[in-house]
Amino acid sequence: MEVQIAVAKVSKYATSESGDTLEVVERPNGGVSVVLADGQTSGRGAKAVSQMVVRRVIGLLAEGVRDGAAARAASDALFTERQGKVISTLNIASVDLGSETIVLTLNNPEPMFVCRGEEIDCLEEESIPLGTSRNVRPLITELAIEPGLTIVIYTDGLTHAGKRRGLPMDIGATIRSVLEDQDPSPQALADTLLAQAVSLDENRPADDISVVIVKVISRLGDNVRRMSVRLPIEGMGR
Amino acid sequence: MEVQIAVAKVSKYATSESGDTLEVVERPNGGVSVVLADGQTSGRGAKAVSQMVVRRVIGLLAEGVRDGAAARAASDALFTERQGKVISTLNIASVDLGSETIVLTLNNPEPMFVCRGEEIDCLEEESIPLGTSRNVRPLITELAIEPGLTIVIYTDGLTHAGKRRGLPMDIGATIRSVLEDQDPSPQALADTLLAQAVSLDENRPADDISVVIVKVISRLGDNVRRMSVRLPIEGMGR
Repeated sequence: MEVQIAVAKVSKYATSESGDTLEVVERPNGGVSVVLADGQTSGRGAKAVSQMVVRRVIGLLAEGVRDGAAARAASDALFTERQGKVISTLNIASVDLGSETIVLTLNNPEPMFVCRGEEIDCLEEESIPLGTSRNVRPLITELAIEPGLTIVIYTDGLTHAGKRRGLPMDIGATIRSVLEDQDPSPQALADTLLAQAVSLDENRPADDISVVIVKVISRLGDNVRRMSVRLPIEGMGR
Repeated sequence: MEVQIAVAKVSKYATSESGDTLEVVERPNGGVSVVLADGQTSGRGAKAVSQMVVRRVIGLLAEGVRDGAAARAASDALFTERQGKVISTLNIASVDLGSETIVLTLNNPEPMFVCRGEEIDCLEEESIPLGTSRNVRPLITELAIEPGLTIVIYTDGLTHAGKRRGLPMDIGATIRSVLEDQDPSPQALADTLLAQAVSLDENRPADDISVVIVKVISRLGDNVRRMSVRLPIEGMGR
């Protein structure tokens, strides 16, 4: 088997920096974790908050702390620092080779989608952001690592796209239409979701948008881990 | 412009875990850093050392500490803990949007290659691993971010490949042959280098091997950041 992770991420129009922070890190007992936070103020302040949350979570994960405990710790730290005035969403998707599961940790009113073949489930139980109060609980979902599983995670920029024009996106329908194609790559799914949102915002995203796809395939191939990053650079003074 | 980073990484034959640790993290003032360490003991011990080094370096980079200072701090910490008995190589490649440069930090006897068009330079000044003594200095190279630049970084598994059979790899020649193809992707270059090494080791790598490519292209495209990870999973009990 192989787990493939794809990320597509864009900043709000006319801002140089996304308020969303995303990192992919190795887990100390094998596997990787994707950690995504969206700080709910704007501009540079939002970035500082989401960076603080992600940095704290990846530091704890690196020490072997469980995902849910890391989310709670980040929430307590944010609440202590900002007394509920600044909050942040958090999504963690961990491929845990110890438990042989994918562990999804959610502190985000935006749901996640879990797809298996034709079946597309929207995990939309109530989930509140970090820093709102003491004792914020993450919503934890643990899934066996098995071929055909596709998980879709995103920040609220995807949901808000098109809303100012009264044309919100039907995320579930877009996922379904892409998955009906023959075995789309996770990058193709991430890119399609992001492109549709940006298009609904008339190419001027009204908010930062991040999309993460985790897909398990049955591929028998080499035993090489691969990673690639593409970082567009605009407006450099040369 | 766009900076593209590609990684290909394999474990020593018959070991479940690579002793090399690699993370790609966001820089607090814009850009990304690739941090690669190879702990010079074997198996689980090597992994613990390289994880400690990488974790410490990315923690400092996240706080805005400069790359060279982060390398020195990690070296001092390792020397204090292990008194020179355990050492680790370190490579940092940072795309720094503040200074508009790529900053290469090297504490590794293995050189790096810097390629511009037909020109392939091997940076082989003396460079010593972290933890060998107090006051280990990193070798720092700062390059303008410009299209056509390709940087090749690797751990010593690449150099050692084939040596037990008296067939060491000519890394410079392999890079040259790939770059002569029409505009290879960084992933193609990383994959070719790794595949050649694994083949010289008769498909049983004698050491952990990690290859990192950083490439600057002049592409004018969308403004989307993308990342993809592929994690093969072997021998899971299901």
